[in-house]
Amino acid sequence: MTDDLSDLLRVALSAANAGGQVLRRYWYDGVELRDKSAFGGKTYDLVSDADLESQAVIANLLSDAFPSHELMGEEDLVGDLDAEHLWVIDPLDGTNNFAHRIPHFAVSIAHYRSGIPVVGVVVNPMTGDIYSARLGQGATHNGQPIGVSQADSLSQSLVGCGFYYDRGEMMRRTLTAIEELFSHHIHGLRRMGTAALDLCAVASGQFGAFFEYKLSPWDFGAGQLIVTEAGGTVTDGAGKPLGLVPSSLVASNGRLHEALLDIVMRHHPGET
Amino acid sequence: MTDDLSDLLRVALSAANAGGQVLRRYWYDGVELRDKSAFGGKTYDLVSDADLESQAVIANLLSDAFPSHELMGEEDLVGDLDAEHLWVIDPLDGTNNFAHRIPHFAVSIAHYRSGIPVVGVVVNPMTGDIYSARLGQGATHNGQPIGVSQADSLSQSLVGCGFYYDRGEMMRRTLTAIEELFSHHIHGLRRMGTAALDLCAVASGQFGAFFEYKLSPWDFGAGQLIVTEAGGTVTDGAGKPLGLVPSSLVASNGRLHEALLDIVMRHHPGET
Repeated sequence: MTDDLSDLLRVALSAANAGGQVLRRYWYDGVELRDKSAFGGKTYDLVSDADLESQAVIANLLSDAFPSHELMGEEDLVGDLDAEHLWVIDPLDGTNNFAHRIPHFAVSIAHYRSGIPVVGVVVNPMTGDIYSARLGQGATHNGQPIGVSQADSLSQSLVGCGFYYDRGEMMRRTLTAIEELFSHHIHGLRRMGTAALDLCAVASGQFGAFFEYKLSPWDFGAGQLIVTEAGGTVTDGAGKPLGLVPSSLVASNGRLHEALLDIVMRHHPGET
Repeated sequence: MTDDLSDLLRVALSAANAGGQVLRRYWYDGVELRDKSAFGGKTYDLVSDADLESQAVIANLLSDAFPSHELMGEEDLVGDLDAEHLWVIDPLDGTNNFAHRIPHFAVSIAHYRSGIPVVGVVVNPMTGDIYSARLGQGATHNGQPIGVSQADSLSQSLVGCGFYYDRGEMMRRTLTAIEELFSHHIHGLRRMGTAALDLCAVASGQFGAFFEYKLSPWDFGAGQLIVTEAGGTVTDGAGKPLGLVPSSLVASNGRLHEALLDIVMRHHPGET
């Protein structure tokens, strides 16, 4: 299986870098933006041609290398979730940052074997940062091994968070959870705008923890493996393993998991 | 006065880069951290020897070039606020990011002439980003002119925010203001952790606006000039000009100022 994972990782890195090159080209040439999804009658999700072209390039490379593998991606790629080999692709995580010219966004690619993530790659094409992991073989940042924070308490930690597109109950619950985190004297809150990179920030010890009340598998597929291979813990907001469906997410260095989960669960908006 | 400002800017850039070199050295060599201030019995403010050494290097360069000028800095440099020539220095803005190994922090240097900022420089030593402005002569990012966002409404904008060290009323008011911003359908909230760079994000159009309920002059001295020279507006939370004392702060592209100020004022914690 080691050799298998090496092949998968090699192709994943190549595909992520190719997608990243597409994003860089659009970034420098200028960006044509248009609204994407309507959520509760409101539109918050920007996406660009860059996003679609990045996915097309990634999907082509993966399909060429592994014709029998299924593909699931943010841009209307619906793979067979139970497949033995499934690629889960976010061709542009952090579209709002991209749209507003903040060079903090990513390409995220994960490989799931029968529903379990075994390879993950997250690339920020603007900074050149590359995070990757293989099941059982640790996580790396630009080729160097990384590990989660050694903090014993929230009071020693930065905590990252995300807000789903929802601007109603889920937003309010996120804010009350943040208020309670502050009452536990977290060192600081961070809201950077790209979940895949937030998970890498947990994996590399910058954030002690991260939570968001709703994320999609393409947002967390690669990042969750990078966190766990760096020694951390990732669950949904009820403490259960993540699947291949949209979910709340809590990621931490492990030591903080109980404390954060307690807060996140107490304010959890429930099914939405 | 143009030549005067050119000289001041040249020395400010040189000093900021020298301070940034100190920070880079500490970043790469490892960082010895210790707690700084106690705030309401709690300690949140990390500062490192890097901070003190950066300020010493900056202060020496400024004093050598302009022996008669006053210096005011975060690390116990108390200048004469009414001086004809006053330098306002933050040798490390974003200490929490620095402490947690997030390469998003800055050196900020402003020159005030009889209480008015006339030169401002903000440098991120990790990315090499350099923002600067001279009164009446525009603002630049890495030598290229920059301008604020053209957004007409909060719903088209990312909004940055900061949380002061306070974890009580001021924190709660910040969260209620954020809730109201979401109800105005802002595109997204960002909390990056370095006020000087947040102001540069407003100046370069990444953020439509930014607010924080308490900042110090060294946090905003340079950034406020960079915003106004980029076409934006900066006031305190009551819509009045900033002075050389700690203050609430609202920065925007101008078009959003009234709308943001209305929200920030309504939730303003008052004197704290």
